Amino acid sequence: MSMIAIDEVRTWATEAGALARSYFNRVPATRKADYSPVTQADLEVEQLLRERISARYPTHGIIGEEQGGGAIDEEFVWCLDPIDGTAAFVAGLPTWCVSIGLLRNGEPYLGVILLPLLDDCYWAHAHGAAFRNDQPIQVTTKKHIDGNDWMGVSSYAHRQFRIDFPGKTRTLSSVAADCCYVARGSAVGALIGRANLWDLAAGLAILQAAGAAVIGLSGASLEIPPLLTGRRLSEPILIGPSHLIPNLRGYISRR
Amino acid sequence: MSMIAIDEVRTWATEAGALARSYFNRVPATRKADYSPVTQADLEVEQLLRERISARYPTHGIIGEEQGGGAIDEEFVWCLDPIDGTAAFVAGLPTWCVSIGLLRNGEPYLGVILLPLLDDCYWAHAHGAAFRNDQPIQVTTKKHIDGNDWMGVSSYAHRQFRIDFPGKTRTLSSVAADCCYVARGSAVGALIGRANLWDLAAGLAILQAAGAAVIGLSGASLEIPPLLTGRRLSEPILIGPSHLIPNLRGYISRR
Repeated sequence: MSMIAIDEVRTWATEAGALARSYFNRVPATRKADYSPVTQADLEVEQLLRERISARYPTHGIIGEEQGGGAIDEEFVWCLDPIDGTAAFVAGLPTWCVSIGLLRNGEPYLGVILLPLLDDCYWAHAHGAAFRNDQPIQVTTKKHIDGNDWMGVSSYAHRQFRIDFPGKTRTLSSVAADCCYVARGSAVGALIGRANLWDLAAGLAILQAAGAAVIGLSGASLEIPPLLTGRRLSEPILIGPSHLIPNLRGYISRR
Repeated sequence: MSMIAIDEVRTWATEAGALARSYFNRVPATRKADYSPVTQADLEVEQLLRERISARYPTHGIIGEEQGGGAIDEEFVWCLDPIDGTAAFVAGLPTWCVSIGLLRNGEPYLGVILLPLLDDCYWAHAHGAAFRNDQPIQVTTKKHIDGNDWMGVSSYAHRQFRIDFPGKTRTLSSVAADCCYVARGSAVGALIGRANLWDLAAGLAILQAAGAAVIGLSGASLEIPPLLTGRRLSEPILIGPSHLIPNLRGYISRR
């Protein structure tokens, strides 16, 4: 029995998604120190989620894209990306997400990702089953990749990589969305750039529950604790069913 | 004064979008002769649009992705893509469109493109202004392309091209959507693969009204009449403001 009521986390995501959506196509972006965009929507949605979490779980740590970290040594640490895919949000594109992850002792514990324009909520306990709304999901069981398959790539991948994937590559412009489409078996995998923990934490729980593997492009395992301080991934990662990961790695080389 | 009531065409698009959406995430795809996917939704939506058009404009020609051409020598020829981006539709992705274009004497005359999941309707008379819902739109007026800009590319572009665009590349998985995001000035441009006329006709009218240029990757002009028989574009095309097209061309080379 989980110590966290995931249904309640889903209601927070719904509330956050409605707030974000009220700003969609109506708000300009400013640039943060790292030159990534932020809007009034990001700030308000993160504040809303922090208030809900703090009221219900006052001893838990929280890190978030907009306000940074706090109490990261706690057993439970929430990792929030109020709008994952802010650049897509600002561009009027639909694949941005509210991403709410929870780590327990530095490992994925649960994740809830909402794509408000699709009314799609992906959620899982890392050690349970994964769901899209009320439907169980899992990674693809295909044995071989062919020309009709697709994989997610970052929108800067064309500058960094030569990609020989035989099917389609698609840029969802959101790491959390990449995780969801791999977890449901729509994409066979995804190549994710140097993300932050708040982009990934919810997705990692959903991927684990859906049967996906996560591995660095070099083949190294993903180490979560160094990311708790706000550091980015040390290298791009691949996500997908473990039996397809070697194929996916083989398609990607540095430009 | 237009001889076509574009408001009525928008109501057909809304009706068609609702029908398509009723099948979204609920319908499997089969493969056509060219191995592209088709669903029950594509077939029913095209039939619906053909009935609306035939009832109102019985002498006009109609060509459509699913049923092919008819009366293509008429002064007015409608070009229908009931779901542009069927592969995205089948993958559960949101950027598919209902695309309704009208040619007059082989030239773009009007276009209506609806993205049902975004509730965004783009529309224009080719010789008038372009709109997203009730807002006038136009291509970007930026003089220079930088790292924060984005361009649309096809989901197979990684296999065909080396792309040195300095910003982000994004795959919307729909030619009609590419046209809309260029027309509203969100994308600075797009590289479109060897599309059919039904993918493009509505977008061409909207692009023209929004101030965009369209040119073959070789620099050749786009010739519409050969496409009326269902033939694909003879080469990929670039769309964008004319002052940025030379830059866009310079970023793209064959692999």
